[in-house]
Amino acid sequence: MLILHALSGDAHAAGSGGWWSDLIGPYKGIDTNKYFVVCSNVLGGCKGSTGPSSANPQTGKPYGIDFPIISIGDMVNAQNQLIDHLGIEKLLSVIGGSMGGMQVLQWMVSYPNKIRSAIPIATTMKHTPQQIAFNEVGRQAIMADPDWRNGNYYDHAPPARGLAIARMIGHITYMSDTSMAQKFGRKTRPNKEPKKFGAEFEVESYLRYRGDNFIKRFDANSYLYITKAIDNFNLLNGNKNLASIFRGLNAKVLVIAFKSDWLYPTYQSQEIVKACKLAGIDAAFCEANSTYGHDAFLLETEQEAYLIKHFLNTVSNGHNGDSQ
Amino acid sequence: MLILHALSGDAHAAGSGGWWSDLIGPYKGIDTNKYFVVCSNVLGGCKGSTGPSSANPQTGKPYGIDFPIISIGDMVNAQNQLIDHLGIEKLLSVIGGSMGGMQVLQWMVSYPNKIRSAIPIATTMKHTPQQIAFNEVGRQAIMADPDWRNGNYYDHAPPARGLAIARMIGHITYMSDTSMAQKFGRKTRPNKEPKKFGAEFEVESYLRYRGDNFIKRFDANSYLYITKAIDNFNLLNGNKNLASIFRGLNAKVLVIAFKSDWLYPTYQSQEIVKACKLAGIDAAFCEANSTYGHDAFLLETEQEAYLIKHFLNTVSNGHNGDSQ
Repeated sequence: MLILHALSGDAHAAGSGGWWSDLIGPYKGIDTNKYFVVCSNVLGGCKGSTGPSSANPQTGKPYGIDFPIISIGDMVNAQNQLIDHLGIEKLLSVIGGSMGGMQVLQWMVSYPNKIRSAIPIATTMKHTPQQIAFNEVGRQAIMADPDWRNGNYYDHAPPARGLAIARMIGHITYMSDTSMAQKFGRKTRPNKEPKKFGAEFEVESYLRYRGDNFIKRFDANSYLYITKAIDNFNLLNGNKNLASIFRGLNAKVLVIAFKSDWLYPTYQSQEIVKACKLAGIDAAFCEANSTYGHDAFLLETEQEAYLIKHFLNTVSNGHNGDSQ
Repeated sequence: MLILHALSGDAHAAGSGGWWSDLIGPYKGIDTNKYFVVCSNVLGGCKGSTGPSSANPQTGKPYGIDFPIISIGDMVNAQNQLIDHLGIEKLLSVIGGSMGGMQVLQWMVSYPNKIRSAIPIATTMKHTPQQIAFNEVGRQAIMADPDWRNGNYYDHAPPARGLAIARMIGHITYMSDTSMAQKFGRKTRPNKEPKKFGAEFEVESYLRYRGDNFIKRFDANSYLYITKAIDNFNLLNGNKNLASIFRGLNAKVLVIAFKSDWLYPTYQSQEIVKACKLAGIDAAFCEANSTYGHDAFLLETEQEAYLIKHFLNTVSNGHNGDSQ
């Protein structure tokens, strides 16, 4: 099966330090004793796949913003080539949350005959203007950083402050009002830097920490390209009819949303379920309880393990009529 | 009566171009044929009151970040001096939304004997970490702009890009998912600047426009100081007991919240009503229907006019026992 990562994720899904290590492994929700699990870095990324920080073979220098605009469809096409290369004819399942969920949906459309099941989590068939807006402000923050140098910064210092601000905006949207209140409240921190507009509240310090950490592991241009791919993603493009999107798909689907996720609200997952049902697909929907907001897809692994394990059992036992 | 403005507002509340011109004027919700209406720019602002862009009398140059940290309480104390200067012994009402609402609440605590009524709208007794976080990212964007020069930019170009990004973040939080979907959808605009990461979606173009407009009329240091005053505001500070906050207040209160306002959610207004009720105050609460999000306090003037007019009638008719 194929695991699909989110905006800032990478191929390191399982094992120590993996972003879904609680979910993937021996005897875990996605049981590596039973299943052969593949996860690759997305096209446009900076953790293994080709992206704007990769060397352009024509110049020998990093692409920068000469890298072509990419889509979620391009990412999935690259994954399909990997699957072909590995000699896998049919995937038991494609699973991912957030942007990973968009790739799941794209697999359902691009390669319906190559998947036996699909699990899109905390995701959407297309971004709303609010979702676009949060990404856009992040991009603006990166491009406003003079160190961005129109994308040609690889010989210089990277646009660290801009990327950190983009990441801070992201983090606010990944948490919920409730989870932030529980984690930080209005707690203040010892005033180590008694200067004006330093981090006084713990939430300020946390955001700065997360922003500063991110710049060590992520490329700012990749952030631009991948968020743009997310914003441009629209499974309904050219489809006036919701029922036609998944026509021809013969796979079981499990759609998972989380109650406090205000970045990818439940109604967007319900829209996916509706499109599945209209196409006659065997689709189950679960809105899981959580206060974690969008981060729930990374944190509520116990609930996900339970749901996914039982779902995969019905798929691998052949109950989906796939043997026809 | 005293009108109190929000973060980016000013004294120009009524008349042509005023931020509450639909609400304040002859025969309007706040009827200037009946009431003498006062509105002043807040301390720390850049539209009339003393702020970081004002000249420091000791140096003759703008304060910059030598300007002292200010609080909502300081703003209200300055307003009280204005009221004294005008020879007003008692205000019929103090009215404001968002940060204006915080000043209303502060008036209720600082000068309970000088007000006959109070109308806090779309506001809170204290910021949650999520609310702090949005302001903090805006401050970070300003301070990350090299043109900020640690606040000493008045002889140079201002930190325009940083302030514009802060304003863009603000605008996302002022609207709602629904109002953005209605206003922009996924509409794209003619690609006037066919370069990568230009504004393609209308929502992107709108945010850039609003950000670019804001820098023409607002001082970046004022933005830092005022958002910090908002984040530091905590009417519950030192009050372990919600009932004790408004003890001694003898005024009628009308609390208004808006359904789609996710920046200042209804539960925060309900907390104000609860504190009033615990103190035995005659407090009414209305959660008005609106899809505008937090902007509703500026846009739903018809609903506000209706609520405020009827409320003020009961106050000016002396039904609040104030004649004792």
